[in-house]
Amino acid sequence: MELQNDLLLRVARGASVPRPPVWMMRQAGRILPEYRALRAEAGSFVNLVRSPEMAAEATLQPVAALGVDAAIIFSDILVIPEAMGLPYELIEKQGPRFPKTIERSKDVEALLSGDAAAERLEYVYEALRLARRRLNGRVPLIGFCGAPWTIFCYMIEGQGSKTFSKARAALYRAPALAHRLLDRITETSIAYLERQVEAGAQIVQIFDSWAGALGPEQYRAFALPYIERIVQALDPLVPVIAFSKGAWFALSELAKTGAGVLGLDWTITPAFARAQVGDRIALQGNLDPCALYAPPEQVVRATESMLRAFGPRHIANLGHGVYPDTPLDGVRAFIQTVKGWRYQ
Amino acid sequence: MELQNDLLLRVARGASVPRPPVWMMRQAGRILPEYRALRAEAGSFVNLVRSPEMAAEATLQPVAALGVDAAIIFSDILVIPEAMGLPYELIEKQGPRFPKTIERSKDVEALLSGDAAAERLEYVYEALRLARRRLNGRVPLIGFCGAPWTIFCYMIEGQGSKTFSKARAALYRAPALAHRLLDRITETSIAYLERQVEAGAQIVQIFDSWAGALGPEQYRAFALPYIERIVQALDPLVPVIAFSKGAWFALSELAKTGAGVLGLDWTITPAFARAQVGDRIALQGNLDPCALYAPPEQVVRATESMLRAFGPRHIANLGHGVYPDTPLDGVRAFIQTVKGWRYQ
Repeated sequence: MELQNDLLLRVARGASVPRPPVWMMRQAGRILPEYRALRAEAGSFVNLVRSPEMAAEATLQPVAALGVDAAIIFSDILVIPEAMGLPYELIEKQGPRFPKTIERSKDVEALLSGDAAAERLEYVYEALRLARRRLNGRVPLIGFCGAPWTIFCYMIEGQGSKTFSKARAALYRAPALAHRLLDRITETSIAYLERQVEAGAQIVQIFDSWAGALGPEQYRAFALPYIERIVQALDPLVPVIAFSKGAWFALSELAKTGAGVLGLDWTITPAFARAQVGDRIALQGNLDPCALYAPPEQVVRATESMLRAFGPRHIANLGHGVYPDTPLDGVRAFIQTVKGWRYQ
Repeated sequence: MELQNDLLLRVARGASVPRPPVWMMRQAGRILPEYRALRAEAGSFVNLVRSPEMAAEATLQPVAALGVDAAIIFSDILVIPEAMGLPYELIEKQGPRFPKTIERSKDVEALLSGDAAAERLEYVYEALRLARRRLNGRVPLIGFCGAPWTIFCYMIEGQGSKTFSKARAALYRAPALAHRLLDRITETSIAYLERQVEAGAQIVQIFDSWAGALGPEQYRAFALPYIERIVQALDPLVPVIAFSKGAWFALSELAKTGAGVLGLDWTITPAFARAQVGDRIALQGNLDPCALYAPPEQVVRATESMLRAFGPRHIANLGHGVYPDTPLDGVRAFIQTVKGWRYQ
């Protein structure tokens, strides 16, 4: 099946395009009424993630409803700790909770990793196969995983946190143990992304959601090398988007990992990013997701101003996942403005 | 009473000193066994804050126990929304909750502000008077308040948040209302800090804990001007420390507010900060508070490496408040290393 809209893949590979492609992190989710219906039918988020049929449907919803230039597989970064041996539950309004966490060496040794863990995620691969088939070449399909540092945070803390101070403390207290755990997560992530690609993902994104909790020195020691290992292990024909939220201090190093695209949060100006990473790599982002709460005519202006500031080699997106209560008028104004844009 | 140790004030005013002064954000608090005893006696954190006698005692504890070069008044940034008309409670392991929040124009109109609000905080001024008297010139006494944007976050959200997306959305949805509220908070903060200085504060810190939730454009519109107004309104003989956590993108502008000191979180290298702000302003920070969980000999090395990287015009501190379960051995290694340092 030939791709009818390959804007995303072309930008990610460094080719030129008439306008930036656009998609939104968390586009498959609660902003869409059809998603909320599906979620109600599934009974829980975790059920939805685990049902290939429903996950594929959620993946396709924003393509039909919003006209985005890419689909991203509906899943969760926390399927990796689960596959490795730490199951989680999602508690309404509170977020994920892991009854078991990693405290000592034997906890790491007890984890599954690499192929043995990745093969437990057959439901994700099946969702990808279904989604890819049903997309029928309309737009590319994005696979993803969490970055090792971000997954490490959950495996140590057992839940979300404002500071991730337990996870950060572990890097100072027991650096060798931290590296062993990061190593296992990395192995598993590589096997997982390879299988995602086999199942139909045409590009993959690595989400380092808690990158900004680390200072530059710790990021360089405990986060960056593992992202680089994942990027280097994958088929070079499949582009990688590295999105390290809050890691403004590491952009130039992230640009050297081999990732074709760097994701930017909304605190980073395009000018700052370009000065750090040079002209070749593509940049993705970075409208403040809260800008979509403004009246649509202001969303149009904010989007145009972002597009102008980025110029070419840009994938239009938000600087973070779209928030669940974002008005669809704002979302549509954002997407339509990008789709109407033309580079000179 | 002449100050026996005026290192902090001298650095904040641009004078040279033989070694950097050292104190820690949240030094008066749960790291100290004597604080935990006092807190148990008070019955609740809020009782402790409201008792001038006990708050003064908490203020002095780290001076005696740790030998820091400054005392910071034991209080909470949330006394300001409370004085303005939004009381809060602290829920164990969850943080602050405001039963009433600001939703519309009439909510802002109903608030007290300026002197009328500040005069409700007599218990803070009394705590400052007591603490200043008991310090007896040993070290300077720091007063503080939250920055208007950070206080705004709580008044809109009614609680902490990982994204403060409601507060940020308010800036896009209703910018005029946001400015009116920020204006009132600013007026109140000025009146509050003036009274703190009258009561004995010799230097003040403005905590913009949620600065990093905003992008540069929003920060420039909704955060920076209000910090500047506070700094400009205060007696120029009282130095101001502006600590905008996460606002790496606004350092050069923060340096122009008139603040004598900029606080840095641990993601910012001294070299980056100096390149942004020039040589004249003092910098405060910024060891990762998690570095104190390492064995003491490593804390010494990390502290020395920080001191070397900053060079002069530096106030040694952590990049964020010390975490409650930090081992005292790590804390002491940090403080002693700074106190043993000598500039060439």
